[in-house]
Amino acid sequence: MRTVIIGSGAGGLTTASTIRKYNKDMEIFVITREKYIAYSPCALPYVIANEIPSFEDIIMHTPEDYKKNKNINIITESNVIDIDSNNNEITYCSNKSMNPKDDKDNNNDNEDNNNKENNKDTDNNFKMTLNYDYLVIATGGLPFIPPIEGRDLEGVFALKTIEDGMRIKKYAENSKNAIVAGAGAIGLEMAYALKKLGLQVTIVEMAPQVLPRALDIDMAKKVMNYLTEDLGIKVLLEKPLGKILGDENNRVKGAIIDDEIYNCDMVIMATGTRPNVELARKAGCEIGRFAIKVNSKMQTTIPNIYAVGDCVETRDYITKQITLSPFGTTALRQGKVAGKNIAGVPAEFNPVLNAMVSKIGDIEVGGTGMSELRAHQNRLEVVVGKSKAFTRARYYPGGKNIYIKLIFDMNKTIIGCQIVGGERVSERIDAMSLGILKNITCEDLSNMEFCYAPPVSMVVDPIALAAEDAYDKFNRL
Amino acid sequence: MRTVIIGSGAGGLTTASTIRKYNKDMEIFVITREKYIAYSPCALPYVIANEIPSFEDIIMHTPEDYKKNKNINIITESNVIDIDSNNNEITYCSNKSMNPKDDKDNNNDNEDNNNKENNKDTDNNFKMTLNYDYLVIATGGLPFIPPIEGRDLEGVFALKTIEDGMRIKKYAENSKNAIVAGAGAIGLEMAYALKKLGLQVTIVEMAPQVLPRALDIDMAKKVMNYLTEDLGIKVLLEKPLGKILGDENNRVKGAIIDDEIYNCDMVIMATGTRPNVELARKAGCEIGRFAIKVNSKMQTTIPNIYAVGDCVETRDYITKQITLSPFGTTALRQGKVAGKNIAGVPAEFNPVLNAMVSKIGDIEVGGTGMSELRAHQNRLEVVVGKSKAFTRARYYPGGKNIYIKLIFDMNKTIIGCQIVGGERVSERIDAMSLGILKNITCEDLSNMEFCYAPPVSMVVDPIALAAEDAYDKFNRL
Repeated sequence: MRTVIIGSGAGGLTTASTIRKYNKDMEIFVITREKYIAYSPCALPYVIANEIPSFEDIIMHTPEDYKKNKNINIITESNVIDIDSNNNEITYCSNKSMNPKDDKDNNNDNEDNNNKENNKDTDNNFKMTLNYDYLVIATGGLPFIPPIEGRDLEGVFALKTIEDGMRIKKYAENSKNAIVAGAGAIGLEMAYALKKLGLQVTIVEMAPQVLPRALDIDMAKKVMNYLTEDLGIKVLLEKPLGKILGDENNRVKGAIIDDEIYNCDMVIMATGTRPNVELARKAGCEIGRFAIKVNSKMQTTIPNIYAVGDCVETRDYITKQITLSPFGTTALRQGKVAGKNIAGVPAEFNPVLNAMVSKIGDIEVGGTGMSELRAHQNRLEVVVGKSKAFTRARYYPGGKNIYIKLIFDMNKTIIGCQIVGGERVSERIDAMSLGILKNITCEDLSNMEFCYAPPVSMVVDPIALAAEDAYDKFNRL
Repeated sequence: MRTVIIGSGAGGLTTASTIRKYNKDMEIFVITREKYIAYSPCALPYVIANEIPSFEDIIMHTPEDYKKNKNINIITESNVIDIDSNNNEITYCSNKSMNPKDDKDNNNDNEDNNNKENNKDTDNNFKMTLNYDYLVIATGGLPFIPPIEGRDLEGVFALKTIEDGMRIKKYAENSKNAIVAGAGAIGLEMAYALKKLGLQVTIVEMAPQVLPRALDIDMAKKVMNYLTEDLGIKVLLEKPLGKILGDENNRVKGAIIDDEIYNCDMVIMATGTRPNVELARKAGCEIGRFAIKVNSKMQTTIPNIYAVGDCVETRDYITKQITLSPFGTTALRQGKVAGKNIAGVPAEFNPVLNAMVSKIGDIEVGGTGMSELRAHQNRLEVVVGKSKAFTRARYYPGGKNIYIKLIFDMNKTIIGCQIVGGERVSERIDAMSLGILKNITCEDLSNMEFCYAPPVSMVVDPIALAAEDAYDKFNRL
């Protein structure tokens, strides 16, 4: 029996390792366009910021490690160009660059046309086929670059692969001014990184707030204050990046935002990703509203083809609607489910809360479940509890501010949580994710037993304070 | 209507504030033996260690604050000497010292005989009476000092009040060697504090491990290693403190442990506390197995007398058996329940997990629910999941080790958690407390959605790793 996995991100490699954990005999192949595997894309902004010493540090394993330790075969720098699902066979070819420019082209500018490009580029290369019993599509997402003028200029970057990170860092060394388009987590992390390297940084965002997917506007304002006042980053909200301007060498020299010219040497497109579903479509897998359709076993509509990670759609835990969950942790958990099922161990992937956390300079920002705004959009009435507190006892030196927002439905059950603070945010988000999954109420939370010691918490936990605030509001209804 | 509260610890003051929150008209009196109120006793070791600059810092409010902001009358330095529950009247007298030695005596050496002493001491003082509609007994605990030779010598201390802390710190300034009897959280925090002040410190503990109430021996060993190897504290396990030796001035000069003489200048008795139930007994309230008996409203067996804090007994969430919960956070939550009920707002106090956390130097230690040892003592079969992981992505600088132990019953439901780590322990304990209360299983936990960013977590959370370990063990059963 053989499983072929397309893609070496968290989803693909976790599928491979999970199959091996439960099945010692399965032949496992992973085919990837990338040269480096098993690195953490989430870490890239922190390497650029010099908070992690080098790009090598974030590469956890080599293809040789996988072969040696787990008998998993990894074929790098290779494009899968076709899937023949009737004959259970894929066709791929190596893209090990005869032309060194390939690498850049594939990973940066022309993502939308990637597969077509690859076909063209690689027609001259030797095509290989590999048959499979199970196929796993883990083709991830592709950076979405809005079709604006100047997007092909030198100095315009998206951040997806480790090689993108290397290019950005190198380019930043000779730059003074950067514009970051998009104020999601990656946008903010990149803005901080470039600022830390000494650049002047401007963020431009279409929404009326930073972190529009993760936070409500009230919580986003705390982050906004930190960015502008503490870090000195300029943030332009409700503005589109209109056009990127180039000099005579086709290098970025500025951008037009809201009819105003901003000088800059580089532009980071942190404008999101789109599920990469082309191969799945070719194979005949059904594509859903946003991405590849899978069942709770991570099976596509073709039973021996699974799909995991940024290229699939999933279900929102609260609304039960179809959604995307483009997080490394989601890919990893889906890989575990796909791997188990392929190995014959029953497992199901559950609907997601899209819990997230980011560290931007000295603050941590996290969110899970439903925001107040999204609740309103779903015509769901909610009551919100908030607290402004400290991460340690008030008198304990080094304590940081922490802002908590809890969102409850009219049954007093928690459906969302957002936290901005100087420390100790991520585990609180996890606790509230657990609370959402287990239908905890504001009364439960306000009375809950929290552990306490002055250096690590307040005697009344900030979560309990926020829950008490909601409890009081419910009582006043 | 008038409520009289005896005791100004977390339980007493929270009861007072909660009544006021829901009832603007109630007359509220708090009578306390202490001079300083509204300070955090848990913070005392950290002031002694100089991690908090001064004792004044940990005093949050004065009696005047309470009068002014909440119209709560606080009568300090006064002993309640009798409760006449037939006539709803208490008798108290001021102990504002005519004799400055009183203060020391009351708070340090003679706790066991405290109330008798007070009666004797104060017979000469003016007795006052106060009638009540509701009475709240929040008399806390008294340090338990084992009846060994030398316990009355100068240089022998228990740590209960802020004044104890001040005396210890002053005495430590002229000391070189300290023995700490008892390796519970306070013992370890005090050992660290004295070490940090430059003393040689030896801990002596009867149990075969440190933190015997909170941790199993395997987890306690991680703490033990840190104490001995990193901090250079000597720890003697399974040894009783036999005798304290004095010099010609009746000052501590050594101690006999296991027939060996240890030189020391001071001895800290961190040998636990006992519920202070004498007044409740006098009033005719039923005393249970360990302490004052209360129902879930915090009512004693006399309906208009409530009791909260270290002087009451409560129920263990897992075993449903009677237990003690001598934590500030328990007192506070009980005060909230008592206060609400007195104000006519229904509230119930739930059985406890006895979640705890402590910071000792650079490590955090926490536990909640049932330990493996206690499960065995209760003839409860369990499966344990463990992980040794990091607090950040492996490659992220500054990450600390974290050791997690999860305890599951044979339904795969979590019943306990212990964590020792360099950071981010307390919120994980809280999350697992929530998991225990909501019957989360090892499968739920191993598949759970944790948020992730390299500076604040591993891509697979250490909790999920430990749950996966248990899951694999269940599968092998």
